[in-house]
Amino acid sequence: MVEDKDIQKLKGFREFLPGEMRARRKVFDALRKVARKYGFREITTPSLEPMDLFLVKSGEELVEQTYSFEDKGGRDVTMIPEETPTRARMVKENKDLTKPIKWFSESKFWRYESTQKGRLREFYQFNYDIFGEESVEADAEILAVAAEILKELDLDDSADIRLNDRKMLEGILSTYGIENFKEVLQVIDDKEKMTDKEFLDKLVESGLKKEDAEIVDEITSLKGSFDEVIPELEDLVPDSEESQEAFRRLVDLRDRLESYGIIDNFVIDLSIIRGLAYYTGMVFEIFDTEGDLRALCGGGRYDDLIETLGGEETPAVGFAPGDAVLELLMKREGVWPDEKVETDVYVLNVSESVRRESLDIAERLRNKGLNVETDLSGRNFGNQMDYANKINASKLIIVGERDLEKEKVTVKDMDSGDEEKVSLSDIERFFQG
Amino acid sequence: MVEDKDIQKLKGFREFLPGEMRARRKVFDALRKVARKYGFREITTPSLEPMDLFLVKSGEELVEQTYSFEDKGGRDVTMIPEETPTRARMVKENKDLTKPIKWFSESKFWRYESTQKGRLREFYQFNYDIFGEESVEADAEILAVAAEILKELDLDDSADIRLNDRKMLEGILSTYGIENFKEVLQVIDDKEKMTDKEFLDKLVESGLKKEDAEIVDEITSLKGSFDEVIPELEDLVPDSEESQEAFRRLVDLRDRLESYGIIDNFVIDLSIIRGLAYYTGMVFEIFDTEGDLRALCGGGRYDDLIETLGGEETPAVGFAPGDAVLELLMKREGVWPDEKVETDVYVLNVSESVRRESLDIAERLRNKGLNVETDLSGRNFGNQMDYANKINASKLIIVGERDLEKEKVTVKDMDSGDEEKVSLSDIERFFQG
Repeated sequence: MVEDKDIQKLKGFREFLPGEMRARRKVFDALRKVARKYGFREITTPSLEPMDLFLVKSGEELVEQTYSFEDKGGRDVTMIPEETPTRARMVKENKDLTKPIKWFSESKFWRYESTQKGRLREFYQFNYDIFGEESVEADAEILAVAAEILKELDLDDSADIRLNDRKMLEGILSTYGIENFKEVLQVIDDKEKMTDKEFLDKLVESGLKKEDAEIVDEITSLKGSFDEVIPELEDLVPDSEESQEAFRRLVDLRDRLESYGIIDNFVIDLSIIRGLAYYTGMVFEIFDTEGDLRALCGGGRYDDLIETLGGEETPAVGFAPGDAVLELLMKREGVWPDEKVETDVYVLNVSESVRRESLDIAERLRNKGLNVETDLSGRNFGNQMDYANKINASKLIIVGERDLEKEKVTVKDMDSGDEEKVSLSDIERFFQG
Repeated sequence: MVEDKDIQKLKGFREFLPGEMRARRKVFDALRKVARKYGFREITTPSLEPMDLFLVKSGEELVEQTYSFEDKGGRDVTMIPEETPTRARMVKENKDLTKPIKWFSESKFWRYESTQKGRLREFYQFNYDIFGEESVEADAEILAVAAEILKELDLDDSADIRLNDRKMLEGILSTYGIENFKEVLQVIDDKEKMTDKEFLDKLVESGLKKEDAEIVDEITSLKGSFDEVIPELEDLVPDSEESQEAFRRLVDLRDRLESYGIIDNFVIDLSIIRGLAYYTGMVFEIFDTEGDLRALCGGGRYDDLIETLGGEETPAVGFAPGDAVLELLMKREGVWPDEKVETDVYVLNVSESVRRESLDIAERLRNKGLNVETDLSGRNFGNQMDYANKINASKLIIVGERDLEKEKVTVKDMDSGDEEKVSLSDIERFFQG
């Protein structure tokens, strides 16, 4: 037995009381509802996996930032920092899945990182992916899900989806003789966090000549709506088949997003890279329009990863909004749900002698799906009233002997204060009306 | 980068594909719905905690059966094997919570145990607790939630709730001079797994005389409905105030369970102990009536634990059904939900030229909350039809040029095969009718 009983929770971990959780559940329900509307289906994955699963994709570096350890059976294991490698395994092992495979999940993830605003050690993420479909329609549907989430959460005016295509960007860079994509893209990925000078210096460090660095700066400064940027891209994109294809795909994507009625949510931004090396085409990140928060989420197309992870060649596109930055933005915009508990009905028994009748009424309403509480503590009228107020009961049913003699109870509306007598036999009807 | 790409999931861990997950989600929704009906409110706790949190309550032994390790900051941490210590901390740190505190949660837990039927290393549990209320009403409400869960899952005829009161049992034992409760209760807790002879031998090993062991065997063989067992207990329960109080409480509990209309779900069984040492009164376990599965869940009253964990004196009662045994029983009884995905509508575009119109129809129905899929792959009529069948679409909307000229589409009911033409402007109304 340990003596010190004042054991705090770990830094970067959270617990949620009912009010906080109710707000979060509303947000999660919205994320779930959007998934379902578009025919995404829920899956669940293990929270602990063999460490090697993450080494394949991310290498030692990412594993350094995880909760990894040797289990009691001597296996190196990792608390999942992301879900993609597990999903890749599932796709690989279930060859008869109907394609396109459209999956979502609500999962917890863990990263051993220094905590800061919007970055925690334990966080929730919804992962949405379409596997087995390479078309621009799939890209558009993933982006439609992202846009619909913003709408559903009342964030469509407070956040932009910034879009790029890595293949197209690489094509543009290569016309200037820039081919060390890996290093250059990594610098571009950090552009947001640097001054112009720092950015240019870093590019030169990565192996570029100064004039090429300036070209990269100019290209990656290209930002605007589809209609603003596409004409400029027309001049920039080289004639190579791959680059032209990527460009045409972006034009097609524009057309689809217009069909979805969501084109105004998008900004083309050639500095969007997505840190992870495995994206192969369209990439996007969602930022608050004021630009003072980290990205809400990001995603894109990653057609090679499943094969890299040992599966068959399987195109894929997906994204994963997390709860931490979402909460910051929603609170800033005043659209985070009320952190208040709700109760439909409190059944107040005026005296101990009518407890049985009170319980019976409570049960009848519960059977109709209502959320009903009743006294557990033998409290008097006033204290039960206090409790009913604290749990934000919408209606109060007062059960007293005198009313019961006439087969009635008193129903009080807690907002208006109005009271009326209701026949015992009419109670269900009264509450369903 | 690791070369071996055939990395399996860990033993005792599960992943769920959409069909499996849909079934599980229906079960979880039922558990959630019951919680809400009784006014339990959702909380969430961290999945990783300082190891010491579990040492306080459970000692080294339990920690041996956990995933515990040193994190990168040198802290000893444990993937939570249960939620009670965390809840105790939350109650302790939030002194202004309205009492009774009624909490539920849906959480994953981890135990490093040898896996067997119904026992896994990663599992889900719903935890329901009432804190701050010592009354028999609270015991009854927890039991009502348990009984309602069985009903909601169609298990009320396939499972019994077996009930005991530890204070009463200890009172009875003490009239026979048996006072080494800890050892004796531990043997009783394992009674189910032993032959009669083994049971008696173990009791003797625990320090009892042979004749006392036989008395314990007889007492703990007492089983039956409230009405069968209460008269027998009347003779057995000693006159001591504590024992009589425990007995009267059981009689009161009978009365409450009758008010809830659930008395038939219960069996009094004096061999029910609940392994964990911290229960202080009513204890129960739910078993399948055929008795070939492990307990579905257990719970009871634990009035001292919060104080032991450093909080104020806080009575508590709760229980926690897990998903593993529940699934086994529901499958055996044929009440496990269908493992089939569902889709409300598939919008089939007869040709590429009507893609935009198809997308528009899909979006309109999604905005009405329907779950709608449409083609992402440029498939022909037959292949889209195959896909619609595979995702179990209830209705098919066939969008073709000729129909569109008349501002119509064809809606096909996938069950009956019936088709009808519907005006474009009437689509929402058609699907909401």
